[in-house]
Amino acid sequence: MTTVSDRPTSVPTAAPAAGVSALASEADAEVDVAYLTDHLLGRWSELRQVARGIAGDPRFAKIEGQTMAESRARVLNQLKLLVEEAQVLRAFPERLGGKNDAGGNIAGFEELLAADPSLQIKAGVQWGLFGAAILHLGTPDQHDRLLPGAMSVAVPGAFAMTETGHGSDVASIATTATYDEQAGEFVIHTPFRAAWKDYLGNAGEHGTAAVVFAQLITGGVNHGVHAFYVTIRETLPDGAAGAFVPGVGGEDDGLKGGLNGIDNGRLYFDQVRVPREDLLARYGQVAADGTYTSPIGSPGRRFFTMLGSLVQGRVSLDGAAGVASKIALATAIRYGNERRQFTGASETEETVLLDYAEHQRRLIPLIAEAYAGHFAHDRLLDLFHAVFSGEMDTPESREDLETMAAALKPISTWRALETLQTAREACGGAGFLTENRLVSLRADFDVYATFEGDNTVLLQLVGKRLLADYAADFKAIDGIGMARFVVERAADTVLYKTPLVRATQTIVDTGSVRRAAGHLRGETAQRELLTDRVEAMVADLATALRPASKLDRGKAAALFNAHQHELIEAARAHSDLLQWEAFTKALADVRDPGTVQVLTWVRDLYGLTVIEKNLAWYLINGRLSGQRARTVTSYIDRLVARLRPHAQSLVDSFGYGPEHIRAAIATGAEQVRQDEAREYYRQQRASGDAPTHEKTIKKAAR
Amino acid sequence: MTTVSDRPTSVPTAAPAAGVSALASEADAEVDVAYLTDHLLGRWSELRQVARGIAGDPRFAKIEGQTMAESRARVLNQLKLLVEEAQVLRAFPERLGGKNDAGGNIAGFEELLAADPSLQIKAGVQWGLFGAAILHLGTPDQHDRLLPGAMSVAVPGAFAMTETGHGSDVASIATTATYDEQAGEFVIHTPFRAAWKDYLGNAGEHGTAAVVFAQLITGGVNHGVHAFYVTIRETLPDGAAGAFVPGVGGEDDGLKGGLNGIDNGRLYFDQVRVPREDLLARYGQVAADGTYTSPIGSPGRRFFTMLGSLVQGRVSLDGAAGVASKIALATAIRYGNERRQFTGASETEETVLLDYAEHQRRLIPLIAEAYAGHFAHDRLLDLFHAVFSGEMDTPESREDLETMAAALKPISTWRALETLQTAREACGGAGFLTENRLVSLRADFDVYATFEGDNTVLLQLVGKRLLADYAADFKAIDGIGMARFVVERAADTVLYKTPLVRATQTIVDTGSVRRAAGHLRGETAQRELLTDRVEAMVADLATALRPASKLDRGKAAALFNAHQHELIEAARAHSDLLQWEAFTKALADVRDPGTVQVLTWVRDLYGLTVIEKNLAWYLINGRLSGQRARTVTSYIDRLVARLRPHAQSLVDSFGYGPEHIRAAIATGAEQVRQDEAREYYRQQRASGDAPTHEKTIKKAAR
Repeated sequence: MTTVSDRPTSVPTAAPAAGVSALASEADAEVDVAYLTDHLLGRWSELRQVARGIAGDPRFAKIEGQTMAESRARVLNQLKLLVEEAQVLRAFPERLGGKNDAGGNIAGFEELLAADPSLQIKAGVQWGLFGAAILHLGTPDQHDRLLPGAMSVAVPGAFAMTETGHGSDVASIATTATYDEQAGEFVIHTPFRAAWKDYLGNAGEHGTAAVVFAQLITGGVNHGVHAFYVTIRETLPDGAAGAFVPGVGGEDDGLKGGLNGIDNGRLYFDQVRVPREDLLARYGQVAADGTYTSPIGSPGRRFFTMLGSLVQGRVSLDGAAGVASKIALATAIRYGNERRQFTGASETEETVLLDYAEHQRRLIPLIAEAYAGHFAHDRLLDLFHAVFSGEMDTPESREDLETMAAALKPISTWRALETLQTAREACGGAGFLTENRLVSLRADFDVYATFEGDNTVLLQLVGKRLLADYAADFKAIDGIGMARFVVERAADTVLYKTPLVRATQTIVDTGSVRRAAGHLRGETAQRELLTDRVEAMVADLATALRPASKLDRGKAAALFNAHQHELIEAARAHSDLLQWEAFTKALADVRDPGTVQVLTWVRDLYGLTVIEKNLAWYLINGRLSGQRARTVTSYIDRLVARLRPHAQSLVDSFGYGPEHIRAAIATGAEQVRQDEAREYYRQQRASGDAPTHEKTIKKAAR
Repeated sequence: MTTVSDRPTSVPTAAPAAGVSALASEADAEVDVAYLTDHLLGRWSELRQVARGIAGDPRFAKIEGQTMAESRARVLNQLKLLVEEAQVLRAFPERLGGKNDAGGNIAGFEELLAADPSLQIKAGVQWGLFGAAILHLGTPDQHDRLLPGAMSVAVPGAFAMTETGHGSDVASIATTATYDEQAGEFVIHTPFRAAWKDYLGNAGEHGTAAVVFAQLITGGVNHGVHAFYVTIRETLPDGAAGAFVPGVGGEDDGLKGGLNGIDNGRLYFDQVRVPREDLLARYGQVAADGTYTSPIGSPGRRFFTMLGSLVQGRVSLDGAAGVASKIALATAIRYGNERRQFTGASETEETVLLDYAEHQRRLIPLIAEAYAGHFAHDRLLDLFHAVFSGEMDTPESREDLETMAAALKPISTWRALETLQTAREACGGAGFLTENRLVSLRADFDVYATFEGDNTVLLQLVGKRLLADYAADFKAIDGIGMARFVVERAADTVLYKTPLVRATQTIVDTGSVRRAAGHLRGETAQRELLTDRVEAMVADLATALRPASKLDRGKAAALFNAHQHELIEAARAHSDLLQWEAFTKALADVRDPGTVQVLTWVRDLYGLTVIEKNLAWYLINGRLSGQRARTVTSYIDRLVARLRPHAQSLVDSFGYGPEHIRAAIATGAEQVRQDEAREYYRQQRASGDAPTHEKTIKKAAR
């Protein structure tokens, strides 16, 4: 596998290459904010800047407090504006006006979250799901016929996959598409209430078409889930959606916890006929006589190939999660640096919130997590682009991409929710006011944890992949071949592959981890500890689940279920490692010595925080002694204190301006208020007019 | 200290007293839902039932999707209805139409959350803060003059304590009330922008008066924070609030993350004059000539006494947090028992969500936490009633009450947020729809974590109290007196006191904890482990902070700050122990053998979950060996599996009906849908009409 992220840094510089020798001395280390901001923009810097321009434009900003109806109308209109002004169609074929630029498209798209998550997701429904399904599941002819309407939003479309009774279990959806060879048509049908399509953006009100997923049945054989292009509503003369077409019905999902700019809804189909040509036919065709053919022989692989082509949703949610976390941290850190509360070291001067150790402990590790998530997302986007541009489109790299997306999206979306909530609480009552945005962003973001693949289900997929790789690796090699096997794997394979390269190493030298742990601060020790955890957990699981192959279905399922929690924990550990490796690799590309020094501390804080969260595991499994384990926490305390002066620079470098953050308390208003208050008391003390405190008098009288 | 919770159980029964001998055998154990429901209603059973009647009445239910203006108007109107129909004035003096029933009042009040958190909090502002401040800080004359308007809502009032620049640090508020002896008036003044009162319910729109907290200055001396009754708006002929009176100004806080039925706002005072008689004068009076007198000599103690009288807010939030958690669990468990997803053990039958180990792991420990919180809240309410009814009104019991409230409110409110979110995610996309209520409740509940005392600040107070008690205990006793000291403390003191009784024991026998840990499942072992953790953490902190007394202010503050995180962790550990002890004590009152057996497992799950969360601490500090630590997780797994069949009964026993839960997915609708789907497939299989799967054909061909 080639390394796909050797991208040019956006600021070429004569500074020495990063590395221990190039680190600034501890006292001098400072973040070069302009440099780091630019550096973080990354490979698709220009497209991100265009998207941020859009995201900061008041015409695209969420208007808080709008009714659902107002908000829906506004967001639909914004979609049309995006077609004119933003570069939202880059993923589509050049001959249809796109740029065939998968990665750049996502890079821009995820930035839209800063304007309004409803806008991001409505755009995602229209182009990333409805349009992308036509693109990836349709034939070139179908592209020519169906994509223009999807691209221009002349045809707002729903992505009708999920059913009320089947969320993440797409293979079991109950909607049927039965081929009628007499008529040359498919009959789309909803057999019972649980098979209604549900939670579909554009289905509640605006959609005139849908890509409907259904079991394709022809000649009495069910060929599994396929996608069909179905008109669901009339288009009125003014272009708006009219009534449902005959046979189609539905309901509006109504108010939601957030994202109320999107008209989610339910759809059902009562023997709705669609022409044979409207089966999106890239991976499965039905001839006029009803004969089914597919370029992919195995129904299982065909299903996963079709679903896999939709991985971009998860990729973009991972990026959007990063944007949400960054905005939350920019708000809370700014406020924490300005707001004062309680006197401490001084009689007269109150302490700024971020000087409190607990405030630091709550927020600064989240900055480290945001950076880890950022760099991991860069790698994910690189891999996505490599696959979808065709540069590296192999079944293996597609599978790696799906696993990486499934490993990162759950962690980053949960992290964003935690970060938004911690930031909101760190801002106290002010954090609860909508004018400070955190509650609004959190409400909109909430569902990111369960849509486009429920987080828990995705982590299970990752866990299963880890197990499968484990079994495959060890099946393929014998004792003698092991050394060769280790050497053959490229060092950074871990970024896309399960980290089993290290498992073999551990087997060879079980003592190494314990020895290396002496230098917890060091990169090597962190890598050993994080890697060892994934390997050991997967190995333990494999051992525990080995008997399953000899059990009957019921007992095997029970055994698997008994280890479900560990499977998910192993997937989390893998995700942690992925992010740590991406962060570490990214350090090598940072050219400014002060910046790389501070970011190295941030990386260490990330690594040690992950280790601290799992400290019991390291202790129980003999990877750390009690004494060493204690030092994890004290190192973290030291790193947090060391990073505290850099917290503002680190969040400023995220590059979001007031037009993106849009929080009244993050505008400097608090600093003005605090300065006014301190000046008042300073003058009062200077004038001698200050009232004496009863306390002081009583003390003097004693 | 006497035990205040030896209340009669509401169902007297001839069943044998609870205890190991009365436990039902494991296989037979079942929750008697009717019995447990009734038992959980507790001491103020009738009042809770009245309040639940109100909370389930559609006239009081939140209408989702209302505009802020509509919601505010509705909730104000509901307050007036409550005066007529509910027993919301019980805390007030009998001569004014109240019942002088502090505990019963709170018991009913906290149930209002089920109707609408805005209603609970608006009622809390009017009667629990504005009215209660007049009651607790005013004199009998002032009660006669000012309470009737507050009680009847003829005068909607704000509780003007918090300032934009001072949240939890009330002692430092900057608003002044300077006595003008010429005029016999106080001049209330806001010296700068940061001193505006902020986040005040009723201040945005409806309030015509406020209890304003300000620094009382007379004769050039600042006597500290006192409360003043101030008219802020005109009352129009129809009783509604008109314009601000001269000198008073303000702003509406506008939209919030939730609780939009409450008109929060900001107030400022520009040399506003109030008569001398409107200083709420219970704890401080100013004579016509400006002489200040107070029944409490120490300004510090006076301040804490005044603030302490307002503890009921925290008590009721702790109870309301329990209601929110219970509703969330009732929704998610019901749905988890009906919704099916993926086939596992069976080819044809899909598995219900709650049969998945990870789903159980996410939800069932939260049931245990809800029960622990419930029983701890019962004890808190007992203590609150004992203090406020005068049964046990000593400075020591008041301080115990404040510490207990400060220990429970943070944990229960964070727990409710976690439970609501976990429940929402456990219900997937359906959880995000407002029709299923979880997102709405969570949005409204969010601010509970930072109002009425920021959770982090409250836990710090608890930590400081633990340290102070520790120092006091050891100052008072010498080596010889130690045994006597241990004996003299009542065994259940731990419920109201810091658990330092055990610290001395540990010193005497440091080996006991380690030995007892052999039987982790046992009550004794759990108690030892939970108690030991608090003691050891407090002792370590005391040692670490000892040098502070010899340092200058700056260095002492820095030392304290360096240990702030541990202080807060110690407070959490104390809260965990409190809840475990309350749960354990409550088991003795449960008369049904099956119920007590199941609840004992629930208690064990609670205890072990707390231990598991802190497993690294137990390992590092040599309290558990690696081998023993492993068994914690396996015991939890076993308990979760054992409790899974009882999950529905346990949440049904919370006693909330569909009129309280108000979630479309918790009405049985999902069961109907699933039954219909299964019947469809059953008939299809029976008929032989089911299409053959391509997969099956391919397999057969091989």
